[in-house]
Amino acid sequence: MELIESHLCFGGEQRRYKHGSAVLGCEMTVSVFLPPDFGSHTPVLYWLSGLTCTDENFVQKAGAQRLAAELGLAIVAPDTSPRGEAVADDEGYDLGKGAGFYVNATQAPWASHYRMDDYIVKELPPLIEALGLGSRRGISGHSMGGHGALVLALRNRDFYGSVSAFSPISNPVNCPWGKKAFGAYLGDNPADWESYDASLLLADAKAPWPVRVDVGLKDNFLEEQLRVEALEAAAAQSGSELTVHRQSGYDHSYFFVASFMEAHLRFHAAQLK
Amino acid sequence: MELIESHLCFGGEQRRYKHGSAVLGCEMTVSVFLPPDFGSHTPVLYWLSGLTCTDENFVQKAGAQRLAAELGLAIVAPDTSPRGEAVADDEGYDLGKGAGFYVNATQAPWASHYRMDDYIVKELPPLIEALGLGSRRGISGHSMGGHGALVLALRNRDFYGSVSAFSPISNPVNCPWGKKAFGAYLGDNPADWESYDASLLLADAKAPWPVRVDVGLKDNFLEEQLRVEALEAAAAQSGSELTVHRQSGYDHSYFFVASFMEAHLRFHAAQLK
Repeated sequence: MELIESHLCFGGEQRRYKHGSAVLGCEMTVSVFLPPDFGSHTPVLYWLSGLTCTDENFVQKAGAQRLAAELGLAIVAPDTSPRGEAVADDEGYDLGKGAGFYVNATQAPWASHYRMDDYIVKELPPLIEALGLGSRRGISGHSMGGHGALVLALRNRDFYGSVSAFSPISNPVNCPWGKKAFGAYLGDNPADWESYDASLLLADAKAPWPVRVDVGLKDNFLEEQLRVEALEAAAAQSGSELTVHRQSGYDHSYFFVASFMEAHLRFHAAQLK
Repeated sequence: MELIESHLCFGGEQRRYKHGSAVLGCEMTVSVFLPPDFGSHTPVLYWLSGLTCTDENFVQKAGAQRLAAELGLAIVAPDTSPRGEAVADDEGYDLGKGAGFYVNATQAPWASHYRMDDYIVKELPPLIEALGLGSRRGISGHSMGGHGALVLALRNRDFYGSVSAFSPISNPVNCPWGKKAFGAYLGDNPADWESYDASLLLADAKAPWPVRVDVGLKDNFLEEQLRVEALEAAAAQSGSELTVHRQSGYDHSYFFVASFMEAHLRFHAAQLK
């Protein structure tokens, strides 16, 4: 990884790297916040961003560095898709670049680059931990990234020690964003989508950790796209510990995310320490 | 003022307005954070941004809303220049749009629109206070906006109750950014620049309030453009209370600003209450 930016921030370091990704077949950027005195004792929270985002949205807008520095948490914010001229794209904001949906695509023209699942779970952690960080990992995210956090944690229950989500796309096989993206990336057969659906995964087996979700009740996407009630039904079915905090008056923006970032960081820090 | 955006944020409201400006002769946007339960008891902190910024940079990057909500401070973030196709511009990032320098220009082609001094001090406050806020006002800013905050406060000592600055251009008549902008906006005679130079104003008469300034010691602009030592000499000359906090390792970015925002908000709140 090549360091391309570094800024002292709340006594820690907000870094940005670029690196060649063998999994994605392109060059990627990734942002990393390192708390003061980081080391092998430092847990790492992976933050997965939403549609249209890059690695920079969270870093600039979530206001997480203050408390991450205090709690001794590193935070990794990857990009949301493969990038570059060789990578397939779509005119829509909800497919292609900026919309990788954290799956391994199986369909042309996506399968050659769109392998964000393997990138986040397999390729990135060793690169991050080689910076001198520990191997206790949490994962969180927003909207498409909330879906990613829930799904990657539920698919890799030993790999992550904590999981939470803001405004997650909770049941993508049953919402327009999910149907469009999964249809393109995974093919026409909905049976092939199920292993990337948080509600289906959570219904199937009890989660090994408590799951925290926050949604805003003024979120325009709440009913049609997010479907958190499906996640709650799934948790009830498997006996999993899920708490959905419905925040009155809040919308889908980073102003909402920033407002409850402290609660999520404390939630992760408590489980990862 | 027409409300164009509103987001609940830390229990307050992050709003964005557009309005026709008679002073600037164009349409402007301005961002306003309102703390919970705001009213005529609520003081208003004006935040002036730096070169290339709009009203949105501070709102997204400074992380100020959390503490502003707690302290009961409203924060107004204006744009940094007049805008629109009819407004003169320059190819450089440091002159024209995004670079109004908070002066009233006297020279063609700038004089017809570039009147940011009058906009910030005369036109905007009544519009803001008509939202139901108090008339206790503080002012702060970053870089070009730090210059603006110091200069507008020192030119209007009764109008502002508190002033601070991050990385201010402290002695613009003696630095490249200031010479270029003042030469264009105010003309070739450096004597006409003096009433917009914070160091000259502070040397001339004792400031009625303590002034807080923070600079990063890894700021690439520190020596050539910021010249805070001139401000310190001026304060000594007039017997003004100036504290310059030199922050080791920090640069010119909003990662630095965010890191010390809490100290500045508490500084203003203590004087404005």
